[in-house]
Amino acid sequence: MQPAAPEPRITLADIRDARARLGARIRRTPVQPLSGPAVEEAFGAGTQAELKLELFQHTGSFKARSALLHALMLPDAERARGVCAISAGNHAIAVAFAARAVGTSAKVVMKADSNPFRVEQCRRYGAEIELAADVHAGFRRVQEIAEAEGRTFIHPYEGLRVAAGTGTLGLEFLEQVPDLEAVIVPIGGGGLAAGLSSAIKLANPACEVFGVEPFGADTMYRSFESGKPEAIDKVRTIADSLGAPFALPVSFALCRANIDDIVRVEDAELVAAMRFLLEQAKLAVEPAGAAATAALLGPLRERLAGRRVGLIVCGSNIDSAGFARLAGA
Amino acid sequence: MQPAAPEPRITLADIRDARARLGARIRRTPVQPLSGPAVEEAFGAGTQAELKLELFQHTGSFKARSALLHALMLPDAERARGVCAISAGNHAIAVAFAARAVGTSAKVVMKADSNPFRVEQCRRYGAEIELAADVHAGFRRVQEIAEAEGRTFIHPYEGLRVAAGTGTLGLEFLEQVPDLEAVIVPIGGGGLAAGLSSAIKLANPACEVFGVEPFGADTMYRSFESGKPEAIDKVRTIADSLGAPFALPVSFALCRANIDDIVRVEDAELVAAMRFLLEQAKLAVEPAGAAATAALLGPLRERLAGRRVGLIVCGSNIDSAGFARLAGA
Repeated sequence: MQPAAPEPRITLADIRDARARLGARIRRTPVQPLSGPAVEEAFGAGTQAELKLELFQHTGSFKARSALLHALMLPDAERARGVCAISAGNHAIAVAFAARAVGTSAKVVMKADSNPFRVEQCRRYGAEIELAADVHAGFRRVQEIAEAEGRTFIHPYEGLRVAAGTGTLGLEFLEQVPDLEAVIVPIGGGGLAAGLSSAIKLANPACEVFGVEPFGADTMYRSFESGKPEAIDKVRTIADSLGAPFALPVSFALCRANIDDIVRVEDAELVAAMRFLLEQAKLAVEPAGAAATAALLGPLRERLAGRRVGLIVCGSNIDSAGFARLAGA
Repeated sequence: MQPAAPEPRITLADIRDARARLGARIRRTPVQPLSGPAVEEAFGAGTQAELKLELFQHTGSFKARSALLHALMLPDAERARGVCAISAGNHAIAVAFAARAVGTSAKVVMKADSNPFRVEQCRRYGAEIELAADVHAGFRRVQEIAEAEGRTFIHPYEGLRVAAGTGTLGLEFLEQVPDLEAVIVPIGGGGLAAGLSSAIKLANPACEVFGVEPFGADTMYRSFESGKPEAIDKVRTIADSLGAPFALPVSFALCRANIDDIVRVEDAELVAAMRFLLEQAKLAVEPAGAAATAALLGPLRERLAGRRVGLIVCGSNIDSAGFARLAGA
């Protein structure tokens, strides 16, 4: 019998160190309160929602934080050989951005059915792009690239470095709104949730942290149920950015230790939340970016009644036509 | 022959006094830089665009500033009798908000073809709404209401009080980005442009101010050409919030004194700018809110090349279906 691996953990010092390294190359994104009669009706009077507008981050999502941190921390020789990644889009764009920022090259594997807008955004940052038939083929291909070219693989959601990067978002949010009573964070692979929830519980243990997943991509929910990282056979949701097919040990362990509960939402609830954010917050968000709002409009509405709740608008990269198809009547 | 009326003017003290009166009831809205390769390509490398996100103001537009200022400055007896207004939407919502904020009632005349979403937003703030066949009938009706009920009429764009309110937006923007070299502001009736341009020229005369109008509602452009406030026979633009049919003396005089130039954009350029803001800035804006961006993408692109340019995203109140019809492919 092997000895149990030590529980992964990150510290406030790790997160503060990450923030210092990122410096001015990562934006301190604004926080915007939601208010007005329509908002009061939707959430219930007394509930105060604060939107953390991380979709205003460079590259349009939180992914820029961890990708850039990873690129910055590479030893010179490794950095010179370049980086590689696999992604449905937002991580791909972030890795391309990070490579450009540190003066190296990126090769990115994207699923063949990736949103062309995201592929184009990624290409504009100078990344070389390969398309793969599906996510499993993509993971194999990016491993080949890493080995053949000596490129460093930047994982989309696993590892302590990812968590240190996403932890900077949690710490920043608490600095901006110190009296948050709860935060709702979307979960795809769990890299955002792992770091953000760790940061919040380290800085303010009284603040509750809720995860939200689409029913059609509820990997972390199932992992919480079974007590170990689970895989799902197929992703079935419009929230393509939340469609990670399996959980992994580090992000799972950090989520398990720091997230109070996970709720799930239907795709129709994501669409309703997109429309709500358009009309009340003036934001154009892809489905993943609306997930936290969907949770407060739906499954968490009563539970968080009267509380000050932070909603992570984690990112958005979507073209006008695609957005209009989803958000139109 | 009558003596010439003195030129209307406002001072920095007027604007600072307005800001102090508004206090915490008006938001200091965030400024967001636009960046990334697609943005560099669109504006030209070297041009730095800063979005002033006034669409995040209470009620979704800058109109809240002047409407609330007006309501706050009413003597008690007048305030008790209530206020009234005519508007295509954003001013109506702002007056309803202002009345609620100071504890009085609002009666608002809106055009019968006003966007139902805006009518509903206005109603939610507690205003009583009357629909009028067209803008001329509406102006007559609101005068009747003012006289019959003793309500104070809050003009949508004329007067020094309007300008003091919108001046707070200009001053705030310069405080946030002191080294702005130019600002582009959408012009409807000219109330925003009058106060904002006055504030900017008072605080930093070196900063250029450009107005932008749709070709189909170019009242101020024509007024600049002729040297006096002009009317147009019919408004023909998708930017309904910029569709003021005539200019008026105070806002005209302040614009004439403080605006360097006015450019015009086609509706197709407004749609393209809406899509650009959706994809690159993650914002869902009605056509008026995209006008400054359209000007920098189009008629002002070369003239402002390499400069630090502020774009006023003045507001947005639009429903999801209407937005999708405009911004979709």
